[in-house]
Amino acid sequence: MKLHDLTLSGNCYKVRLLAALAGIELELVPVDFMGGAHKRAPHTDLNPWGELPVLEDGDVVLRDSQAILVYLGARYAGEQWLPRDPLGLATVMQWLSTAANEIQHGPGAARLVDKFGYVLDKADALRRAERILGLLEQHLAHNDWLALQHPTIADCAVFPYVALSHEGGMSLADYPQVRAWIDRVKALPGFVGMPGV
Amino acid sequence: MKLHDLTLSGNCYKVRLLAALAGIELELVPVDFMGGAHKRAPHTDLNPWGELPVLEDGDVVLRDSQAILVYLGARYAGEQWLPRDPLGLATVMQWLSTAANEIQHGPGAARLVDKFGYVLDKADALRRAERILGLLEQHLAHNDWLALQHPTIADCAVFPYVALSHEGGMSLADYPQVRAWIDRVKALPGFVGMPGV
Repeated sequence: MKLHDLTLSGNCYKVRLLAALAGIELELVPVDFMGGAHKRAPHTDLNPWGELPVLEDGDVVLRDSQAILVYLGARYAGEQWLPRDPLGLATVMQWLSTAANEIQHGPGAARLVDKFGYVLDKADALRRAERILGLLEQHLAHNDWLALQHPTIADCAVFPYVALSHEGGMSLADYPQVRAWIDRVKALPGFVGMPGV
Repeated sequence: MKLHDLTLSGNCYKVRLLAALAGIELELVPVDFMGGAHKRAPHTDLNPWGELPVLEDGDVVLRDSQAILVYLGARYAGEQWLPRDPLGLATVMQWLSTAANEIQHGPGAARLVDKFGYVLDKADALRRAERILGLLEQHLAHNDWLALQHPTIADCAVFPYVALSHEGGMSLADYPQVRAWIDRVKALPGFVGMPGV
């Protein structure tokens, strides 16, 4: 099973993190992001969106880090990582939306500006980062994990860009519950980091 | 089953649309959005995020339109709307991320500026709208539906803010495949619209 990957991408790291925690073997295929290989064929034949990560599992080709987490969770990682009952599935799904929306456009976007020179509204990204970190802080004051009282793909989806907040100029000093959750994730058996985490 | 609802919200409409198409009965509970009721208790007791929609089904309380679609799909609407196999689930999930990310921050954000006076970067929203409409146009040139060759919750998640693009100043004139898909959705048995669609 191949993951078309970029070491510095938090979205790719979501997948590497689940794979490490759930004992799923991945062959990493590095993509020359700085050289723009993700915007050209053959990568765009796999993913017309010109983005990373992409998963290839035999004939299966999937774009979008959340969708890849769902696939690995449902097919390989077991019910503990992605439950199949409607309420469990929807509870995890709330956080996959959060990862694609508030996290991506908050701490994720702020980091794109600072680390990769993207032309985005940094002030807007920091406002969004503050809002979502405040909501996370409130949620984690009463919950050890994002969903279902145990680690799931929800944690894998939200963790990377939160743990990388400082690379977008967002300190976690005022968010002790978030920092404690980061420490709990880091203490999970099999945990792997990435540069900056 | 109660949907805390706003008629003019495309996110609430996603849920009303699936319910209508799949024959699920919802009791609509209008929330005084213009009066800010979504930002205060008792609404924030249901959803600390201060957002709409919220679904209440007995003891179940869910925020986030995509998560609500997953819940209704998995619990009430049947496999045709949300498959349970890993690949089918992940294929649909790709489009739920698209709804939460590119659609929300593209045509959705442009409409928030024009229709509700939100202070957001309109030029950025229009750039994102053009990109995602181009990708949709390309996808729909070879597919009648977003996922799995039949209507699923993926179509319900993406449809509203695409069909409302003109309310954010984005014309669909150059996107004939997108317009044909909109017509196909509108022709589904049970279809309901909303103001502007």
